[in-house]
Amino acid sequence: MGSASDVGLPNLAPSPLDPEEFRRQAHMMVDFIADYYRNVSEYPVLSRVSPGYLRHCLPESAPNNPEPLEAILDDVRDHIIPGITHWQSPNYFAYFPSSGSVAGFLGEMLGVGLNVVGFNWISSPAATELEGIVMDWLGKLLNLPKPFLFSGGGGGVLQGTTCEAILCTLVAARDKALTRIGRDRIGVLVVYSSDQTHCALKKAAQIAGIHPDNIRALPTRRSDAFGLSAKTLRAAVAADVVAGLVPLYLCTTVGTTSSTAVDPLRELCEVAAESGMWVHVDAAYAGSACICPEFRHFIDGVEGADSFSFNAHKWFFTTLDCCCLWVKEPKHLVNALSTNPEYLRNVVTESKKVVDYKDWQIALSRRFRSLKLWMVMRSYGASNLRKFIRSHVSMAELFEGFVNEDKRFEVVVPRNFATVCFRLLPSVGVVEAANAMNKQLLEAVNATGKVYMTHAVVGGIYVIRFAVGASLTEMLNVRAAWAVVKERAEALLLSEFNVHAAAV
Amino acid sequence: MGSASDVGLPNLAPSPLDPEEFRRQAHMMVDFIADYYRNVSEYPVLSRVSPGYLRHCLPESAPNNPEPLEAILDDVRDHIIPGITHWQSPNYFAYFPSSGSVAGFLGEMLGVGLNVVGFNWISSPAATELEGIVMDWLGKLLNLPKPFLFSGGGGGVLQGTTCEAILCTLVAARDKALTRIGRDRIGVLVVYSSDQTHCALKKAAQIAGIHPDNIRALPTRRSDAFGLSAKTLRAAVAADVVAGLVPLYLCTTVGTTSSTAVDPLRELCEVAAESGMWVHVDAAYAGSACICPEFRHFIDGVEGADSFSFNAHKWFFTTLDCCCLWVKEPKHLVNALSTNPEYLRNVVTESKKVVDYKDWQIALSRRFRSLKLWMVMRSYGASNLRKFIRSHVSMAELFEGFVNEDKRFEVVVPRNFATVCFRLLPSVGVVEAANAMNKQLLEAVNATGKVYMTHAVVGGIYVIRFAVGASLTEMLNVRAAWAVVKERAEALLLSEFNVHAAAV
Repeated sequence: MGSASDVGLPNLAPSPLDPEEFRRQAHMMVDFIADYYRNVSEYPVLSRVSPGYLRHCLPESAPNNPEPLEAILDDVRDHIIPGITHWQSPNYFAYFPSSGSVAGFLGEMLGVGLNVVGFNWISSPAATELEGIVMDWLGKLLNLPKPFLFSGGGGGVLQGTTCEAILCTLVAARDKALTRIGRDRIGVLVVYSSDQTHCALKKAAQIAGIHPDNIRALPTRRSDAFGLSAKTLRAAVAADVVAGLVPLYLCTTVGTTSSTAVDPLRELCEVAAESGMWVHVDAAYAGSACICPEFRHFIDGVEGADSFSFNAHKWFFTTLDCCCLWVKEPKHLVNALSTNPEYLRNVVTESKKVVDYKDWQIALSRRFRSLKLWMVMRSYGASNLRKFIRSHVSMAELFEGFVNEDKRFEVVVPRNFATVCFRLLPSVGVVEAANAMNKQLLEAVNATGKVYMTHAVVGGIYVIRFAVGASLTEMLNVRAAWAVVKERAEALLLSEFNVHAAAV
Repeated sequence: MGSASDVGLPNLAPSPLDPEEFRRQAHMMVDFIADYYRNVSEYPVLSRVSPGYLRHCLPESAPNNPEPLEAILDDVRDHIIPGITHWQSPNYFAYFPSSGSVAGFLGEMLGVGLNVVGFNWISSPAATELEGIVMDWLGKLLNLPKPFLFSGGGGGVLQGTTCEAILCTLVAARDKALTRIGRDRIGVLVVYSSDQTHCALKKAAQIAGIHPDNIRALPTRRSDAFGLSAKTLRAAVAADVVAGLVPLYLCTTVGTTSSTAVDPLRELCEVAAESGMWVHVDAAYAGSACICPEFRHFIDGVEGADSFSFNAHKWFFTTLDCCCLWVKEPKHLVNALSTNPEYLRNVVTESKKVVDYKDWQIALSRRFRSLKLWMVMRSYGASNLRKFIRSHVSMAELFEGFVNEDKRFEVVVPRNFATVCFRLLPSVGVVEAANAMNKQLLEAVNATGKVYMTHAVVGGIYVIRFAVGASLTEMLNVRAAWAVVKERAEALLLSEFNVHAAAV
């Protein structure tokens, strides 16, 4: 029980958000990070630590007493930096890029500083309104069909990741279908994709309670450049319908993770329309490129889809996490994801004049993510954003040219964007041996510390992926990367030759 | 098709991550945010803008050409700041706090700057290892039973929000149950909570495909201080079992959103154990207080639960988002949430010596959230963190004292932490009239712009919630808030008296 007198009440610790202390320490951190970017090309790209290394460097419990920032930054320098894989290194060509930028960083800083929780309009109006505006801006840059924009009756929302975007749209589609066929029939719903589709779909389907037997990963072929054929989809749907199942959701991909393959949207949407399935377009990586007119054709046919997403945190210079999702009919998201407890009731929500984004996503709380996307678009403008994208594509073309000119290598699948899938050709025709050799080559390349690339297996072939897109990468890094590949390949071929010669 | 020569290739735009440009602009942003904190107490806490205001201030499309940071910051000052609700204001007492801190901000900055994507160990070892270490640190500060810690066979993971923590554990529990009873029987699974439980549970159950008829919100009573009674739970479970249903998951709460009520964990866990249900403890708000020995008793009995979560972004000085989740048997999360595509395969994962956190959460990609939590614990130390918590509780006690000393008001439910639920007492006994009067009072109080509080309805009673916890709040703000409440209440009572007098 309290007393109205506050004599003797403990309030001794300084405020943890003192403005001048904030200023002093944040300036130190800015210089620390700026220095990191200046030096990042010198670090081994792939970390060389062993499992468990950090437990030997840090105490077993939190300290009881405060420690100065200087001591913490020393530990970051000595123990954290050596343990990270440097996604911001100009020599990073692994997975897909995580393209940072000054504007993206600043937008995130501002959002973190304001630290509002924008679950509904009233909780921070600017957070909701700016998100609606930038989603329309970005939709226009991508030349998305008008029905996906707020100005056309649809709308966009920022999710954390594509996994969340897929889960939300899948649940929206599921509940729409269950309303039609009956709540008890979740077991008959079927989800479709190709065998190249990101694992996000399988995971979303698992979470949403789709029966594991009803998740189809339809086969693709090298002759189709690993795109899903409409014929394959139609046959699968027909078989399921005959078996009494109900087609629910098709996840198409523009720019698959393994090889940046592109599904033919128009034909697939036509097939899906025959059974009333929801179609999602996952352009997580390649969506960014579609702001350039010369790449826009890859999403031709998107007008037949129900939802479209891409990750601004991959190749749109916006720091993790920032997945942009547009839907034609937001009401299906709201029907599936809304909750309206008393403690969130307010006049503005009840007026139905505003968007409450909590009903468009999994979580209730949400960060002010639109600030960073807004700052990226304003700081660079569409013109420079296109230049950045095109320069990465040019760098990938440069690398592709190196591969093509060297007869010991091949580009395995046609390059669509800024990722080259290549391999060292086998001297004999056995695919397993070639795969093992390329695996060895990739390990040797990464062990140099000078670059980091990763692999995929497409159509049974092990390929090395060279994904350009780190914000600091320049032509000289691409040339140096090719030199490392060539040198390690030559060493590998020589040792194989010696082994062979010794055997003979 | 590329060429090995790069003569004439376009690479004209400056790097979007130039270190010196980063340094220049980030220092500007630091000063902008520091100034914001210096001035934040002067802004109306609840934004006064109207729906759609921002569309009138910003252009309809993204600019084609770059704009300088100065122009963007002008727009932030003129159009964004007036449109946000100031969660960092010392006069913010709404919902629950979103307690920022210098250390939390710095940790977020560093994570954003490094911008790694730590989906598995190899993608950035330090991100995984530091998370494991800080989750053990924090678990020890909370005196969690050893089986929840990595050092005791369990483990902790950072999620974005409690909604995600509940969804992940619910899906883990669901798949564990379906493995036992058969994949086709999702329709018989039942989820339990009280009518005070956060809407996150209902939403998670919806997403996870639990039948809407099988989501129980069991009644609570004012005489139990709105905690869920074991007897009520036992009766509900028994009825469901008789009806052929299968009890799946119980979500208990320590510190409910409406009134910070506490469910009796020990008794509820005993009831749940009888049917083998998964028990989750949601201590989203109140978990932080449990680092103080005098509050730890509120989670006594947690040893009988399967999982425990609290939001460091609420009242642990860590910026949004940061939900800390511990589980006793991580394998159930992994069984439900893992996917292992070829492109993520690596030697370390296959050695099974490491945690791959992608299998503990909904999304694949994940930010380096542990840095901010690590910096908060080190910068303040356990001693100052306890002081911060205690000073907020003291301020709530001060306010509670004011309410208690004024006979026109009452504290409606016992205060457990730093949130006071109070109301202006009705002059006559009709609850509807009292509710309407308190609603009016709250609107009048918030309209002053001097403070922001929100409401809840518990047991049919409309209460005003006064939640202390904003990092800049001091005793003087609490005193000023009480003055506003008293003044508005007097004006309201006077106008009611006048209306009454005129009628007579």
